[in-house]
Amino acid sequence: MKDNSKIISQLTLEEKAELVSGKDFWYTAKIPGKLDSIMMTDGPSGLRKQINDPAGLSLNNSVEAVCFPASALTACSFDRCALNQLGENLGTAAKAEGVSILLGPGINLKRSPLAGRNFEYFSEDPYLAGELATEYVKGVQSEGVGVSVKHFAANNRENKRFTMSSNIDERTLREMYLSAFEKVVKKAHPATLMCSYNKINGIPSAQNKWLLSDVLRNQWGFHGLVMSDWGAVSDHAESIKAGLDLEMPGKGKLSVDEVVDAVRNGTLSEEELDVSVNRVINMVSKFSLHRQDSVDYDLEKQHEFSRKLAADSFVLLKNENQILPINETEKIAVVGQLAANPRYQASGSSHVNAYKLVTPLDRLEKEKINYSYDEGYNLSSDNDDHDLLDSALTASKQADKVIIFAGYPESMESEGYDKEGINLPKNQTNLINQICEVNDNVIVVLQNGSAVTMPWINKVGAVLETYLTGEAVGEATWDVLTGRVNPSGKLAESFPLRIEDTPSYLTFNANPEAEDYREGVFVGYRYYEKKNMPVLFPFGHGLSYTSFEFGNMNVDVESNNVNVDVDVTNTGDFPGKCVVETYVSNMTSKIEKPKKILADFDKVYLNAGETQRIHMVLEKREFSWYNSESGDWQLDNGQYIISVGQSSSTANLMSDINLDWNKAKLDKVSDSTYIGDIVKRPEFKDEMINLGLKDIYDGLVNGTPESKMFSNMPLRAATTMGVSPEDIQKIISGLNKI
Amino acid sequence: MKDNSKIISQLTLEEKAELVSGKDFWYTAKIPGKLDSIMMTDGPSGLRKQINDPAGLSLNNSVEAVCFPASALTACSFDRCALNQLGENLGTAAKAEGVSILLGPGINLKRSPLAGRNFEYFSEDPYLAGELATEYVKGVQSEGVGVSVKHFAANNRENKRFTMSSNIDERTLREMYLSAFEKVVKKAHPATLMCSYNKINGIPSAQNKWLLSDVLRNQWGFHGLVMSDWGAVSDHAESIKAGLDLEMPGKGKLSVDEVVDAVRNGTLSEEELDVSVNRVINMVSKFSLHRQDSVDYDLEKQHEFSRKLAADSFVLLKNENQILPINETEKIAVVGQLAANPRYQASGSSHVNAYKLVTPLDRLEKEKINYSYDEGYNLSSDNDDHDLLDSALTASKQADKVIIFAGYPESMESEGYDKEGINLPKNQTNLINQICEVNDNVIVVLQNGSAVTMPWINKVGAVLETYLTGEAVGEATWDVLTGRVNPSGKLAESFPLRIEDTPSYLTFNANPEAEDYREGVFVGYRYYEKKNMPVLFPFGHGLSYTSFEFGNMNVDVESNNVNVDVDVTNTGDFPGKCVVETYVSNMTSKIEKPKKILADFDKVYLNAGETQRIHMVLEKREFSWYNSESGDWQLDNGQYIISVGQSSSTANLMSDINLDWNKAKLDKVSDSTYIGDIVKRPEFKDEMINLGLKDIYDGLVNGTPESKMFSNMPLRAATTMGVSPEDIQKIISGLNKI
Repeated sequence: MKDNSKIISQLTLEEKAELVSGKDFWYTAKIPGKLDSIMMTDGPSGLRKQINDPAGLSLNNSVEAVCFPASALTACSFDRCALNQLGENLGTAAKAEGVSILLGPGINLKRSPLAGRNFEYFSEDPYLAGELATEYVKGVQSEGVGVSVKHFAANNRENKRFTMSSNIDERTLREMYLSAFEKVVKKAHPATLMCSYNKINGIPSAQNKWLLSDVLRNQWGFHGLVMSDWGAVSDHAESIKAGLDLEMPGKGKLSVDEVVDAVRNGTLSEEELDVSVNRVINMVSKFSLHRQDSVDYDLEKQHEFSRKLAADSFVLLKNENQILPINETEKIAVVGQLAANPRYQASGSSHVNAYKLVTPLDRLEKEKINYSYDEGYNLSSDNDDHDLLDSALTASKQADKVIIFAGYPESMESEGYDKEGINLPKNQTNLINQICEVNDNVIVVLQNGSAVTMPWINKVGAVLETYLTGEAVGEATWDVLTGRVNPSGKLAESFPLRIEDTPSYLTFNANPEAEDYREGVFVGYRYYEKKNMPVLFPFGHGLSYTSFEFGNMNVDVESNNVNVDVDVTNTGDFPGKCVVETYVSNMTSKIEKPKKILADFDKVYLNAGETQRIHMVLEKREFSWYNSESGDWQLDNGQYIISVGQSSSTANLMSDINLDWNKAKLDKVSDSTYIGDIVKRPEFKDEMINLGLKDIYDGLVNGTPESKMFSNMPLRAATTMGVSPEDIQKIISGLNKI
Repeated sequence: MKDNSKIISQLTLEEKAELVSGKDFWYTAKIPGKLDSIMMTDGPSGLRKQINDPAGLSLNNSVEAVCFPASALTACSFDRCALNQLGENLGTAAKAEGVSILLGPGINLKRSPLAGRNFEYFSEDPYLAGELATEYVKGVQSEGVGVSVKHFAANNRENKRFTMSSNIDERTLREMYLSAFEKVVKKAHPATLMCSYNKINGIPSAQNKWLLSDVLRNQWGFHGLVMSDWGAVSDHAESIKAGLDLEMPGKGKLSVDEVVDAVRNGTLSEEELDVSVNRVINMVSKFSLHRQDSVDYDLEKQHEFSRKLAADSFVLLKNENQILPINETEKIAVVGQLAANPRYQASGSSHVNAYKLVTPLDRLEKEKINYSYDEGYNLSSDNDDHDLLDSALTASKQADKVIIFAGYPESMESEGYDKEGINLPKNQTNLINQICEVNDNVIVVLQNGSAVTMPWINKVGAVLETYLTGEAVGEATWDVLTGRVNPSGKLAESFPLRIEDTPSYLTFNANPEAEDYREGVFVGYRYYEKKNMPVLFPFGHGLSYTSFEFGNMNVDVESNNVNVDVDVTNTGDFPGKCVVETYVSNMTSKIEKPKKILADFDKVYLNAGETQRIHMVLEKREFSWYNSESGDWQLDNGQYIISVGQSSSTANLMSDINLDWNKAKLDKVSDSTYIGDIVKRPEFKDEMINLGLKDIYDGLVNGTPESKMFSNMPLRAATTMGVSPEDIQKIISGLNKI
């Protein structure tokens, strides 16, 4: 870190207080003659550089920028390179617009499909979220623009988000909710992190010294700045002491006075303040942009990238009898207002003033498709519009195939509040059911921010999940529907059969003051697999127009990681991309644990008939668990199973390994050691016989209910078998001699 | 409490130390000339007064006593009077045998059907367990014999029970795991409680001052003695300081020395020791028996009571086409080794040396039944015995009806270790499936300690759940099968479809050191109902040979309780007993809460065609929840639904009530109050208009996504709408003026 002590020594207390308080909604404070101001801007999926009203929040009033797919979709790419390129595109746009810090990405875990902000987040799996976010951040920062990785941490619901407490045990926090942040910090060195609104175990993130200083800086080695989410600070001095450097937005004179007063009355020392001032100066110095940085950039090219990224991320959930792709000879009934008025981006702070929206209907006119179009339903209502419905049914009867555009209207999901359910509006569900009555070849294209239920799944031929696609929605959608692009996306979240099945259902939004993370590490597929529950579509699922086979698996245990190699063959007729998913099952550790967890993945393009050997490296961390008693990650020696496949439910290529990376010795025997844990050790037998206790020993190993009961007693309870306390001590010392 | 200060002042330190340590396995210390010794004995379902070896544990060597049904079955009686009579019978037997303290009942909650000791406990519902245990304790103690209510507390698994920690949040502890103990202590004043082996949140129950002193004595007003479970004490001085008065069994000189040394070295003060000594003297004085107490008692009469209690508790789970009761004209194939060698009682400390076992096969010879008998399977193995199977199939083909006795062999469930699964042995499952292929009228009689799965449920005509019946197993079983007794038992636990469905499945026995009670209050039906999950049979379910209808429900809210009256009519052809179950649904409190909870029940005998009006009183507690922040029970004003029925899933007779028992005022508005919580208050509108903020106010109430987002912001975040901090303060003071 740069030494700014000279600048700092020239600043007045008031100037320091200004620096740790944003100038307004989007700028840091300018200290004339000493330090410039820099701008930051919303927009993890495209720049939301607000104009006209820099001092307030105006969600729908910003400069034009390319609207890229939301993270809910880009995560389905399972493609690190694609995320890196997305970052580069965003960095380029930011630099061109004079924006120093891009407020994103959001990398919180998807705990419940009801959470209002899921579309902005990547996955229910911390490994996937961490890997993809790392590349995104590297991409942005490679353009000289800083990021603010958010929302640190455990921001998994919107209701009462300013005051609610996320109550989570430490193992769950470390393994699930902090894990992606840890990876990004360690591997991508983000310029800044943004703290979340919520409390964690009762302490506001903005005042959470454990989180912002002990974990983030001391344990993970973060050297950047922590800013607040907008309005998250309620006690400015406490926040600075905890490690929060910059309050955003500043509250003007009030913010400055708070800090000055705190220093004057001794609540905050000037040394503590200087630490944050130093970090603000570092950030401003490093990311200040100059006129020459603001060059034109190619929005058309960015639009094309947005189109490609979307198409490569779409998830083909179902495709019976190869109903997709469609071809030129077929008569297609296109149905659904979302084709004309698509839901292609999020509400709230990630809303972009799109450079060039191409709707699916716009694009249809450029495709060689014999089509009709019907609105089918009205987005502004849940109720059937019978005229629209009848007309759609008539067209559907006459078509070879029907493509229904369905999804959540914007009012159903947004930052700032949570969803009530995960069903489509009932007029859309009804439309799909009715069309299935008159046409056997129904394709559903979904536009939504998070998992939906599909009560009609067995009636339709195909489902293409497009999430929130970005402005190239029309082009990307027809790219895949017509087969120009072979779909290769994989679900980054499980699709449950019913909201009641979700792991956090018992607690989600039950209590306005707190959210108890009772399911612990059993989030998403970790829960469904462990409870052996059926789901609508599993994590990692996604079809292709071609088929792939895996074989020749080889697993090598090295001294600090495990190498996995596998042959992937395109066994179908189309070229296409294949995602290889590798999971680890811990068969060893005596803790609550999932059946398996994602430990690596790769994506490869293969021509029809082509084979490539894929190499993956599983890191030590993926075999470890967080022991909150010892305060460290623990790896236990023993058996682990590596499984490889094309989804979490079909990872059937398996290999057993035995790890002995942990050099710790066996625990000493004490009077609390259980007899069942030592009964088979020869020393125990010897000691028992030496002490004339052979009868008791024989009873112990003979398997009666009584002996099972005794096996489950600690040595000190061997008194109940008539062993004297003195003899128990002799047995213990005999066992510890070895 | 008696003042024993005079006796205590005459005791030496060594004598005091002897008194707080049991003399041996079953006796308190005798201080010659000063205090007698008293005996205590195992046996919540019948006396297990050990003979020959008073200094050790010998589970199968005790005086003859009547073996009553296990609590798993008696709980299904839903009959407070029956439990009181059971207590009287046990008290009579104890007194006659010179036993001063009966070590029971065990009243822990059934958290998982895998828990090894479920058969000794009552229910998954704390209200039911508390009500029945209260009557049991009153019954025993009415005979001048003391009880030891066990295992205090949260002993819900057997594996590593001496050292594992039950980790439970306080609300769950209070509402679920302590609730039955609280009721028994307050309503039945038990002589003693027995602490459990396990830790609670890391602190051994035997050393848990919060549990044994703060909660039990200071909050609940318990004046009796706390003894240890056998071998639960590992630090004697710490235990005494925490409120544990008597270590059982004593470790002889070692125990005495520990206490004497602790006093001498200042770890334990003599005043602290005297508190426990005083409680031991109280217990011994009160429950000392004299020669004249030891009279003969009528074991035959107790056997008859055991038979009646069992038959009145059996649960008729299924009875299609009134296949039961059987009649004299039918040819019955009786199949299953359990008919000849029944599983009628528990393993472990509750094992009784039965006075007179009558097996189902013994009894058959006295019934007017045209029967054949086949073993069908071998209890000592899981594998098919083809000779036995073939013979049973041949007999089944020739019979009108087949009665299969099935269940868990003794080796599958016992105190001291947990179960691995809840399926019947596979040879029994196979037998049932194969017999169903050759006969359409199959009746299954189950003998088991806890819930089992029934993959064959749709193939059989009837299932009678008899649990662990006690020594009158043969008589009671045929009483019900032949219709002499009309079954009236109700399940005191849910029967899940699969073990994976159970609420604690993710954690149960996952970790040898600790059990995290992640499901919280959602135990048993509270979980299945909330998650809207199908079960095999719901809590409270049980059929009759007749039918009952409920009507004319009337609900009255009084100042401290709610009266519920309902007409119950026997609408069928048999006389019989009907259980009326009343549940409460809290529609008001902003906490995680079950759909409904059992709040009262009654049992009534009705002749065919008879109607009786049943009166129930729901106490304030059943509408309250434990607020661990305020450290008290909280009742919220608002809507509650009372529902009445014959099972948890058919409680369809409903009534809404509104409670306003809580006199607390509305919370003050602060800058953390959410706009959505005040937006409809007229004062807010007025203040906003006064401040010239009408546009923002109008925006807030118009229902756009943006306004929903703003509604979910606290007042302090209204700055993002351009409201100044000063205006926010004005709004707050305006709202608080009212």
